[in-house]
Amino acid sequence: MNKPLFGSRPSAAGVDLLRLAACAREIAHTGMQLAALGWTPATSSNFSMRLDTNHAAITTSGRDKGALTPEDVMVIDLDGRAVGTDARPSAETALHTQIYRRFPDAGAVLHTHSRTQTVASRLFAADGAVKLAGYELLKAFAGYATHDATLHIPVFPNTQEMGDLIARVDTWLDAGKPLRAYLIDGHGIYTWGRDMAETRRHLEALEFMLGCELDLRRLSK
Amino acid sequence: MNKPLFGSRPSAAGVDLLRLAACAREIAHTGMQLAALGWTPATSSNFSMRLDTNHAAITTSGRDKGALTPEDVMVIDLDGRAVGTDARPSAETALHTQIYRRFPDAGAVLHTHSRTQTVASRLFAADGAVKLAGYELLKAFAGYATHDATLHIPVFPNTQEMGDLIARVDTWLDAGKPLRAYLIDGHGIYTWGRDMAETRRHLEALEFMLGCELDLRRLSK
Amino acid sequence: MNKPLFGSRPSAAGVDLLRLAACAREIAHTGMQLAALGWTPATSSNFSMRLDTNHAAITTSGRDKGALTPEDVMVIDLDGRAVGTDARPSAETALHTQIYRRFPDAGAVLHTHSRTQTVASRLFAADGAVKLAGYELLKAFAGYATHDATLHIPVFPNTQEMGDLIARVDTWLDAGKPLRAYLIDGHGIYTWGRDMAETRRHLEALEFMLGCELDLRRLSK
Amino acid sequence: MNKPLFGSRPSAAGVDLLRLAACAREIAHTGMQLAALGWTPATSSNFSMRLDTNHAAITTSGRDKGALTPEDVMVIDLDGRAVGTDARPSAETALHTQIYRRFPDAGAVLHTHSRTQTVASRLFAADGAVKLAGYELLKAFAGYATHDATLHIPVFPNTQEMGDLIARVDTWLDAGKPLRAYLIDGHGIYTWGRDMAETRRHLEALEFMLGCELDLRRLSK
Repeated sequence: MNKPLFGSRPSAAGVDLLRLAACAREIAHTGMQLAALGWTPATSSNFSMRLDTNHAAITTSGRDKGALTPEDVMVIDLDGRAVGTDARPSAETALHTQIYRRFPDAGAVLHTHSRTQTVASRLFAADGAVKLAGYELLKAFAGYATHDATLHIPVFPNTQEMGDLIARVDTWLDAGKPLRAYLIDGHGIYTWGRDMAETRRHLEALEFMLGCELDLRRLSK
Repeated sequence: MNKPLFGSRPSAAGVDLLRLAACAREIAHTGMQLAALGWTPATSSNFSMRLDTNHAAITTSGRDKGALTPEDVMVIDLDGRAVGTDARPSAETALHTQIYRRFPDAGAVLHTHSRTQTVASRLFAADGAVKLAGYELLKAFAGYATHDATLHIPVFPNTQEMGDLIARVDTWLDAGKPLRAYLIDGHGIYTWGRDMAETRRHLEALEFMLGCELDLRRLSK
Repeated sequence: MNKPLFGSRPSAAGVDLLRLAACAREIAHTGMQLAALGWTPATSSNFSMRLDTNHAAITTSGRDKGALTPEDVMVIDLDGRAVGTDARPSAETALHTQIYRRFPDAGAVLHTHSRTQTVASRLFAADGAVKLAGYELLKAFAGYATHDATLHIPVFPNTQEMGDLIARVDTWLDAGKPLRAYLIDGHGIYTWGRDMAETRRHLEALEFMLGCELDLRRLSK
Repeated sequence: MNKPLFGSRPSAAGVDLLRLAACAREIAHTGMQLAALGWTPATSSNFSMRLDTNHAAITTSGRDKGALTPEDVMVIDLDGRAVGTDARPSAETALHTQIYRRFPDAGAVLHTHSRTQTVASRLFAADGAVKLAGYELLKAFAGYATHDATLHIPVFPNTQEMGDLIARVDTWLDAGKPLRAYLIDGHGIYTWGRDMAETRRHLEALEFMLGCELDLRRLSK
């Protein structure tokens, strides 16, 4: 029997191996670029891509995100259980699978940890959300055809209980409020899109607008 | 029939193909460098070069400006109509062609979107202009032989109606006021020069002086 | 007789030459990456790795930390004496050897000098310590399983007398207070870990949280 | 007759061609690194190295300092006259030659133009000098054995008359005041050392300490 190409052995689950290999490469490439920007300090952050209706590929915990190899990507089902591997998925995997379950169009999820994201999360935690308005870059999000719009990014309290965060996201969505991304206080951001390119575009737009908000606050005092 | 080398098929319009190939390469190279500086977040920004009296080469909309290929550059006439291609030019193309029409010496136009540019645009929008004075780097602009001079960069309100922006630029110019660049509120900057090298020099000088203005404002409060 | 491979000739001391070569490579590689981040300005900073119970490999003084070669790494015993070489170890070597003596698990020590570290050291010198609390990245330190914790980083006054600094570290430790890193006023940071990867993770987490503290202070005034 | 290797043809003046070639390479390499840091925006800045008692090699005006070739380096005598070339040295050449005349040990001069340098120059212009004290990095300057020292960096008013600047430098030196570097208001910094490596060390230390001063001022208000 051959040595498996990946940290996970997905044959039993019927996962498309070519799709998995392509996703692992795209996740590693994205990690290299985001790490170079300093958005994944101290082995933080995790990234995933949907493989099919029931599965996703996700980074295993604790790796340097700037030097990922295919072995650092594992397969999970959308209940967050490891598939074809003994590797333990990180606790935060549950936040990724929630996104894939609630947004059928979501094809990729990025969770990063830039200084701007963390500072914004702490600064706006008391308000419960960051309000982004008047930026041309709002148009980076499908459905936003003009800068003359407002995007609310909720800031949820940090917790080590993923169930609490999942419940907060569900509550927000069940109230019918639009959700493109969320911050966790003292921690980082989650955003998603139809594919990795769109998710990158969302992440870059959010980082940019959050940075502008911090600058404007410093300047207008 | 051969596959066209570029996204546009300019034979009918009589565009010089060698000039077009050279411009596409220079635009892609410039994009790679500006993207590395973080001035083109989330596929924003667009770049163009004049091909001849009646045509320009311009980036198509929505591409990652750090990874442009010749296919991402199209030909337009100076009324902003696509030439030899079915690709739709971006709405902002009209701002590029206005510059080529009003400044016969203009050979290149850069529109970028750095955090400094966006923050400055929002901060100075109420004043209608940023006043740059006393910088040695004013000498980056032809006609400025000393730091002891003032350069006004107007800040126009953002709008999705290009006609409104074009009218504002025309009004400014028709009043006989010098114009080397302009900001759009919450958006970014437009600047130009005789060739790409001069345009880059203008852009770098503007980014630098706007950054200094923001720093000085933070420091002198 | 052969030219020695390293600045030090450790045969007499029985140091493992393969281990020394591997440490020298890892130190040089780390230096290249930290220098690229701007954390080692003006040939400042020094790095070391434990070779065995009684020896460590450490950078010699005054080199550009972004361009280290094996010749820039020397062997010392844990009393800070050069082993198998006439090279003079830098005065700060004594701070490295103290860490290896007091923390038997310590396998690597990084002393760097980023602008954030220096500014934080000056700003918090009067308080005697920086208090880091509520950050998810506290979990970068073994023993911290939650963000809901506090890490104190002492700030010691700068001095050219290493004995004074050693006494301050000893006093802190002898009082039973936890110590994961310390700042020296106007100077930089020292941190350590079981191996170079863990030490890098600690350093990145500290730089990140110190940067957030400075940003939040600027923003909350 | 052969095409000259350099922009200048120094045979008549008896300049050592091998020394000139080595200096041109070192200047180009330094330019590439300083440009990557953003310290030479919009083709600003100039660099030189001493060739012998009577000559120096200096960058010609107006080139992108990140892409220098040997042709962008010319020979001048210490009165600032071009040697063996028709190229016109930049006006600021006179500030370089003054340094070589007044400091017989000076082997290299760097004039750069970072945002930190320019902002510091404007902020401290009214005081006439920046006072750097208490930094470990003061030890980057020969003669400074401790952080417990003070280095004054004068800020001279900007002018397009090099004679005025030369007179200010002469007045400062003739008063017996130590001078390791100077700022020009709204412009940039000049510093020097025995060779390029020492000059780089001085420049990095100055940039670092000026940046800390700006940060501390923002934070302590």
